[in-house]
Amino acid sequence: MKDLKEVYEERRSVNFFDSSKDLDEETLKKIMDLAVLAPSAFNLQPWEVIAVKSPEAKQRLYDAALKQPKILAAPVTLIMVGDKDAYTEANEAWWYMRDVGIPDDKILGNIDFAKNVLYNTDLKRNNFAVRNTSFLCMSLMYAAKYYGVESHAMIGFEEDKIKREFNIPDNKVVVLLISLGYFDESKTLYPRLRRKKYEEIVKVV
Amino acid sequence: MKDLKEVYEERRSVNFFDSSKDLDEETLKKIMDLAVLAPSAFNLQPWEVIAVKSPEAKQRLYDAALKQPKILAAPVTLIMVGDKDAYTEANEAWWYMRDVGIPDDKILGNIDFAKNVLYNTDLKRNNFAVRNTSFLCMSLMYAAKYYGVESHAMIGFEEDKIKREFNIPDNKVVVLLISLGYFDESKTLYPRLRRKKYEEIVKVV
Repeated sequence: MKDLKEVYEERRSVNFFDSSKDLDEETLKKIMDLAVLAPSAFNLQPWEVIAVKSPEAKQRLYDAALKQPKILAAPVTLIMVGDKDAYTEANEAWWYMRDVGIPDDKILGNIDFAKNVLYNTDLKRNNFAVRNTSFLCMSLMYAAKYYGVESHAMIGFEEDKIKREFNIPDNKVVVLLISLGYFDESKTLYPRLRRKKYEEIVKVV
Repeated sequence: MKDLKEVYEERRSVNFFDSSKDLDEETLKKIMDLAVLAPSAFNLQPWEVIAVKSPEAKQRLYDAALKQPKILAAPVTLIMVGDKDAYTEANEAWWYMRDVGIPDDKILGNIDFAKNVLYNTDLKRNNFAVRNTSFLCMSLMYAAKYYGVESHAMIGFEEDKIKREFNIPDNKVVVLLISLGYFDESKTLYPRLRRKKYEEIVKVV
């Protein structure tokens, strides 16, 4: 049990990971199983995760990600991949709607609508992948903290190189890297940076 | 106090809002103040929120968003806007780093790096806006539920029309609409749709 507000307040982007502490797959699975409760468009879940854990794979990711030390130090770094084509009928998640009694003609209507209206340009398909996978990323970073695991999101990488190294096809987007692990207690984090105030962000009309 | 896992499990995309129940601005502020604890690249917070609350504004949004009934029924719908240009020195959030003692030459180096490497194409600038604003969206939907408020995310809208109606310039992206309010208890939701299994999503390398 951990209060959501406390998790939000205590989650930080942790630059320094204790390289002596492993993250076992059981914990990763608990984090993922909680994180996937994030919503996605039509519940299509247009995401995949490559968990980079072996020293050999870490080295390849490190070389493709501006040699950021935390990739080597953290026990695992997740390559968060979004699928631009996950709105087509090839995605079996469309048919999960059958489980709750949604009729096939309604599902087929949604597929048509997705193809012809919602995701009918390459930019819209890109944004579909980035947006939904980002929901998962955010959900996952809080879920990790809930289970006592620290995270650090990174966008500094060469996408082409990562795709080549990890066999990610061109219809997919590398949305984010997320290192997971435990804080190196010999280091100190800066205090949390200030957030913009409500009045600066929100306009009520 | 509410357990994070319970919030995750209980949050649903709610199609039916009780139009007789208002969402007061104090509650909206509490939700936002919690949601903005989401991380963003360099803490740049490239987001803005237009909270559509008046009947007149709701009608304009309804007409730009495929006449989805929940825009009229929900007490408020948020237009979640991402700023593709928020990585430039014009964003005062760069200078929040001074508060924690980060020196100006480091900040200026980061600004250069953002301009020349991270966000040096239009697609990267678009993805910067969509990705970070999506973190806020996800953070906000859980935060709303924490405070007893239901949400529904929508991507079915004409972006050009929303931009015109609500004076959103071209360097910004309408990332998502989120209706907020209280469930119409006279309605029933489908059971939650199935999520893909860990083994279907994650590959460990």
